[in-house]
Amino acid sequence: MVAPAGGARRLRQHLLEIFQAAVAAAEPARAVRQHLSLDGDALVVHGIRDSSRVPLLAPGRGRILVVGAGKGSAPMARALEELLGERITAGVVCVKDGHGCSLDRVQLREASHPVPDQRGVAAGTEILELVAGAGPGDLVLAVLSGGGSALLEVPAPGVSLADLQQLTDLLLSCGASIDQINTLRKHLSRVKGGRLGVAAHPARVVNLVLSDVVGDRLDVIASGPFSADPGTFRDAREILERYGLWSRVPGAVREVLEQGLTGAVPETPKPGAPELAGVTHVVVGSNRISLDAAADAARERGYQPLVLSSQVQGEAREVARVLAAVAKECRCTETPLGPPVAVLAGGETTVTLRGGGRGGRNQELALALALELEGWEGVAGLSGGTDGSDGPTDAAGGLALPDSVARGDAAGHDAYASLAQNDSYHYLDAVGDLIRTGPTRTNVMDIQVLLVAAAP
Amino acid sequence: MVAPAGGARRLRQHLLEIFQAAVAAAEPARAVRQHLSLDGDALVVHGIRDSSRVPLLAPGRGRILVVGAGKGSAPMARALEELLGERITAGVVCVKDGHGCSLDRVQLREASHPVPDQRGVAAGTEILELVAGAGPGDLVLAVLSGGGSALLEVPAPGVSLADLQQLTDLLLSCGASIDQINTLRKHLSRVKGGRLGVAAHPARVVNLVLSDVVGDRLDVIASGPFSADPGTFRDAREILERYGLWSRVPGAVREVLEQGLTGAVPETPKPGAPELAGVTHVVVGSNRISLDAAADAARERGYQPLVLSSQVQGEAREVARVLAAVAKECRCTETPLGPPVAVLAGGETTVTLRGGGRGGRNQELALALALELEGWEGVAGLSGGTDGSDGPTDAAGGLALPDSVARGDAAGHDAYASLAQNDSYHYLDAVGDLIRTGPTRTNVMDIQVLLVAAAP
Repeated sequence: MVAPAGGARRLRQHLLEIFQAAVAAAEPARAVRQHLSLDGDALVVHGIRDSSRVPLLAPGRGRILVVGAGKGSAPMARALEELLGERITAGVVCVKDGHGCSLDRVQLREASHPVPDQRGVAAGTEILELVAGAGPGDLVLAVLSGGGSALLEVPAPGVSLADLQQLTDLLLSCGASIDQINTLRKHLSRVKGGRLGVAAHPARVVNLVLSDVVGDRLDVIASGPFSADPGTFRDAREILERYGLWSRVPGAVREVLEQGLTGAVPETPKPGAPELAGVTHVVVGSNRISLDAAADAARERGYQPLVLSSQVQGEAREVARVLAAVAKECRCTETPLGPPVAVLAGGETTVTLRGGGRGGRNQELALALALELEGWEGVAGLSGGTDGSDGPTDAAGGLALPDSVARGDAAGHDAYASLAQNDSYHYLDAVGDLIRTGPTRTNVMDIQVLLVAAAP
Repeated sequence: MVAPAGGARRLRQHLLEIFQAAVAAAEPARAVRQHLSLDGDALVVHGIRDSSRVPLLAPGRGRILVVGAGKGSAPMARALEELLGERITAGVVCVKDGHGCSLDRVQLREASHPVPDQRGVAAGTEILELVAGAGPGDLVLAVLSGGGSALLEVPAPGVSLADLQQLTDLLLSCGASIDQINTLRKHLSRVKGGRLGVAAHPARVVNLVLSDVVGDRLDVIASGPFSADPGTFRDAREILERYGLWSRVPGAVREVLEQGLTGAVPETPKPGAPELAGVTHVVVGSNRISLDAAADAARERGYQPLVLSSQVQGEAREVARVLAAVAKECRCTETPLGPPVAVLAGGETTVTLRGGGRGGRNQELALALALELEGWEGVAGLSGGTDGSDGPTDAAGGLALPDSVARGDAAGHDAYASLAQNDSYHYLDAVGDLIRTGPTRTNVMDIQVLLVAAAP
């Protein structure tokens, strides 16, 4: 039942190449380059469905300001420098320590992530002041990526980072949702929840976003500094009251919320707010865009691609079973597509820890997939984190081939037992099915690729 | 965010109609009628991909024998009687107690299910003798459905039903797989594992199968009485030895296996065995066939169908999340298809019990789906068991609408808490989202339907 060595080798090779294409499409500088171009005196913004032209004034008549935050924001800014060169007047981007790159006209700042620090506040203040000074003829180019929420923060007056941390801890301990926590944070910030966009008004803003969240919600990525915020001060208060926290949060937090409720502090901008009318959002990198790149790479190798979803969440081992079921149906009844086919999915799964083993969500998904595909000649799969780092391991993910379990048996490893112990890393390492890319310096979550070769 | 009442009502109505179409396609008599017809003096067998003609000799020159077992075998035999009338010479089918229907020429036998009893052995013996007497000009029409393995059994000489039960219990307690248990059973039976097909040789056999197993494996459904068996007596012995059971199984069991190992009892027929060359298998009902019927019903209502897989297994609540992710991608990026679209899947999920609530795998899947689809206007889904019976409840499954969770909130029911307690039945009952069909007298496992309406 095992595919000829050549066939299995080819499947493995194709899987890795398709995954690499997905990762490459998310590389921050490339993502920006793919979505922006110059056409005479206009900047052309290539969105997923349409393009728009942003006229550039002659140098000296209108300024171009580059701002941004996030782990990938430095290479994103670098791509803007390569495109616009000396047309860029000034700029500041804030990256996680060690994530910088050489920049000519944009100032590079480093700060702490995931726990924000004063350097992030200082950088955020610089950015806020820079965009607040922008006039109607100016253009703000923003570059945001994962980590931007921690790396770009200016708390409301009187509120300290420690206050925000204490608030977050209280909300988490009560089981508050991430959306609820964000409603609070946005109302205690001078930059989140669209406030940076309001500060930039009346300048034109092009907001270039590398998304690391399921569903690519612009109000969530980096806490949406240029996006309308449907939440209100009233919502923020109700959340605290629901959890009985109103009297337990730091006094400075309660003070800002009270000022907001009386109107002394303005609301975050709501959908349709005129101050945000000059903002153009462009998702330049995302799981969905990387899946499209994977689909192209699959097509080039002879597989008909089927992109199922970029929003897959759930227990990794169970997601593996559903994806395997789709691949098997392709093999058995040529539905939804007949082989050769590439079933593609992405998102962010989770792992419920049961054992004391080592692994990550992608490795666990790959091991579960190997059990599902055992003996299914010509069917193979992969799950990998686009950031190159899966769980507390040096691997990005793992492969699943029809002989993976047999190779494990031969090496004295029991796939079922390894999965039961969440020990996917040691199993995949033993059978040679780990994927190691090293850190990729980007993140659009995870990618799954299942290939179904033509019937033997 | 809630859809207008008309829209939600229409979605609910379409979901139920599409599910009913799936169930109707699995109705045993209809399933047989759809796949057989008479053309002059030939029986035309309509397979999924092609048709074949079986010549019928003139009455008196060749006999037509009808045999079968399984919960749905009586209406399947009835459909044969309606088609062939007095051309049927004789016949015996064995159903579960109470699952009979009026038959003219075929003898109806009832037996115990799921634990077999002597009445099943007596019926099996009748069937064995009937087909063993068939000659080269005769035609055996077999009808098999879920439950056939228990309802059609003739143990090897010397082996009792109690011996077989004891063996099964021993194997289960050691963690043996169902495939391993079946290898043993087939080598201790005079009908399973293709032996009934060998007995029928040299008669022509048309084996009409209603499949209730994932993947529609003919060697698994009703233990494959007309199908080649890849397993051997040697495999059977090795399984017992692997679990240290060789000396612990009943003496009669060991004796039969020893006779098989020395060649005193013949092997089950292997793939390519000439004794089975005259057998034509036709899957007349299956999850896949019902999904196709659901796809037709969806298309008639304006939805482009996407059949993902008939082989979906896994934890019900996690399967819900993956299916929801596909529907959401359709809504957000028109991938894999743009709305209006019907995402269809089937198979058999499982539920890991955590709480003390009441429900079934379909109801649990529906409740988890409701949580995923909350607020997704125009997206709705359903999960239902085609047998009309989901878990220890009077429901077949449940619906998930974008306002299901809001309706639950309004009624004082917490969807998360209900799911955590495996209490889907009470939740869905309270919000009016249970599906109740009553027993359908068929079973091709479960069906999931997700509808994505055109953007509002």
